Amino acid sequence: MNQKIIYMDYGATTPVDKEVFMEMQPYFCNFYGNASSVSTFSLEPKMAIDKARGRVAKAINCKREEVFFTSGGTESDNWAIKGLAFAKMQSGNHIITSEIEHPAVLNTCRYLETQGFKVTYVPVDKSGILDLDYLTKSITEKTILVTIMLANNEVGSLEPIEKIGEICNKKNIVFHTDAVQAIGHINVDVQNLKVDMLSMSAHKFYGPKGIGVLYIKNGTKVDNYLHGGEQERGRRGSTENTAAIVGLGKAIEKSNLNIKDENIRLKRLRDRFLSEVLKIERTTINGDREDRLPGNANICFHGIEAETLLMALDLQGICASVGSACSAGSLEPSHVLMAMGLSEEDAKSSMRFSFGKVTSEEEINFTVKTLKKIIDNIRNV
Amino acid sequence: MNQKIIYMDYGATTPVDKEVFMEMQPYFCNFYGNASSVSTFSLEPKMAIDKARGRVAKAINCKREEVFFTSGGTESDNWAIKGLAFAKMQSGNHIITSEIEHPAVLNTCRYLETQGFKVTYVPVDKSGILDLDYLTKSITEKTILVTIMLANNEVGSLEPIEKIGEICNKKNIVFHTDAVQAIGHINVDVQNLKVDMLSMSAHKFYGPKGIGVLYIKNGTKVDNYLHGGEQERGRRGSTENTAAIVGLGKAIEKSNLNIKDENIRLKRLRDRFLSEVLKIERTTINGDREDRLPGNANICFHGIEAETLLMALDLQGICASVGSACSAGSLEPSHVLMAMGLSEEDAKSSMRFSFGKVTSEEEINFTVKTLKKIIDNIRNV
Repeated sequence: MNQKIIYMDYGATTPVDKEVFMEMQPYFCNFYGNASSVSTFSLEPKMAIDKARGRVAKAINCKREEVFFTSGGTESDNWAIKGLAFAKMQSGNHIITSEIEHPAVLNTCRYLETQGFKVTYVPVDKSGILDLDYLTKSITEKTILVTIMLANNEVGSLEPIEKIGEICNKKNIVFHTDAVQAIGHINVDVQNLKVDMLSMSAHKFYGPKGIGVLYIKNGTKVDNYLHGGEQERGRRGSTENTAAIVGLGKAIEKSNLNIKDENIRLKRLRDRFLSEVLKIERTTINGDREDRLPGNANICFHGIEAETLLMALDLQGICASVGSACSAGSLEPSHVLMAMGLSEEDAKSSMRFSFGKVTSEEEINFTVKTLKKIIDNIRNV
Repeated sequence: MNQKIIYMDYGATTPVDKEVFMEMQPYFCNFYGNASSVSTFSLEPKMAIDKARGRVAKAINCKREEVFFTSGGTESDNWAIKGLAFAKMQSGNHIITSEIEHPAVLNTCRYLETQGFKVTYVPVDKSGILDLDYLTKSITEKTILVTIMLANNEVGSLEPIEKIGEICNKKNIVFHTDAVQAIGHINVDVQNLKVDMLSMSAHKFYGPKGIGVLYIKNGTKVDNYLHGGEQERGRRGSTENTAAIVGLGKAIEKSNLNIKDENIRLKRLRDRFLSEVLKIERTTINGDREDRLPGNANICFHGIEAETLLMALDLQGICASVGSACSAGSLEPSHVLMAMGLSEEDAKSSMRFSFGKVTSEEEINFTVKTLKKIIDNIRNV
């Protein structure tokens, strides 16, 4: 660990911001009281959680009581999808999602298929953008839920959430979005997007791991998921994770403050990266060049195993990824890239580079230079 | 918060131990890599998680691969009970639990009752000890799961887990125990206890909040609960919460190292507390005087509203509790004390004092003195 790391895997996780950590720190050893206890000593944690809830509400433009803290994006997705499905199973059993969702959504939908639900997986075009027409035509009288991610975790494509929101609103279908990759990186306003539920995870925007939020619009009937104590107004049992909640609140506020400038900076860096990398022979970009998360680049190095490239970069201290960390255990080609029409070979030759706060021009330059050298070496063998 | 707090609510939560926090700290801002990524940078978190898993396995005498990290005791209980119930629903639909379980178990069982399962709630005696005969007689051919807590969270009663384990073993029924109050406070060996599943939560033994473990004995068929990525060997999706996992591992190791001496010290303090408090007129102990968690005392102050007493103590900087934090939102009398045969009035006159690492003789003396004064005042009005 002595080598300086060039971290280009912000899509997988981010470091906790130093200021965020400073706000969290007192809640481990000092203000450790149980926020659900009835005593003066629990007042400080209680108020801290309340402040964090307010920060989240402000950031996504909802009411405080619509914010529920969870253990992360995966729990938020499980709760939203299963909670809604079981609450509404009397009115219908049809769910619509897309082919490029995160495993937390896809595997939850697959589980529901074993429980008598029908799921439509809407295809995407070669840029990773959902086929809106297909979605509209898939809606039946039995459709109770549409769940579509805001930004894709592998290629950064931005889905037409506002338009889907309008469609669902008109048809009175509950609409959930997995916004785990988007929150803290682009502006997200649940009113504009017309979503009824939204998932986020703090460790994707410089907050701690193990904490997330599920936004549930008032009036949306969703079953509880974690059964237990009276926490989160009786909706989610489990002792409040005060330090992590405080961290999430600070992180979302801080990310949002700086979002415009940081996006301009990241786009400039990414464009520099792309214009240089695409000069390398037989490289193409996966997804649209412009219409994606500012910090995301996904490149196909045709004829080269991405796993080999990943390891060669790793030896030079550069940290990127193949597919996403959440599917790193599998040897399958990326389901996202396959859905976008790539061949299995091209999917296995693709890598994600995701940029963030520390990414600098020097890092970009070094990475491009290293990539060129490695690819030259591989292709000359 | 300037007043010195006399904390006597260790049963609700504990501060993170300073040494535990020191071990966690590097994983927030430095070794922040996603443990599921494929890169050198993810090696440090991966190894740290592996070390923590080993520490847990050693502490409870199981194999590493039987340890699954969760977001806490509530998730562990939900996973164990629902996962087993749905996995075994073809062989039977009957579950046995007790009347004095934690809400995480009770409310999960109540949820399963809405899903076609039958649940037997075994009664307890006046000491809070489960009626073993009743349990044995409740077993039918349809019984798929017995879930009984190791130590009660309100009165600290220790249940006959080993005997229940033997019964379940013989009848080939899966046995789960919620050991949230026991782990780190008394020795727990899953082989001796013959349990198939066990839940724990780090914040009850000087680790951080938001992290727990579910032990699942090899060969026990349990459905997944959080559907998502390939983490925890494909059994629990969600990015590994490295810092918290490290904290749990250190905390369980440290607690277990010192368990014998600390128990002797706590028992001595508790006995002193009891012998003084029980001198106050019309006070009785709830539960057995000896056969309970060393740090737990639960007292009925007959004719006095415990809520009033709680607030009066709070004004003097003493932090205790009525019922448990997890049911603090409710105005109902404690279901545990009611199951032990107390009248509603006596249950509402009862308080839990739970002692821990910082508890000293001076704190005990001050608390007893303060209690006497407050009770005198109330009774003389």
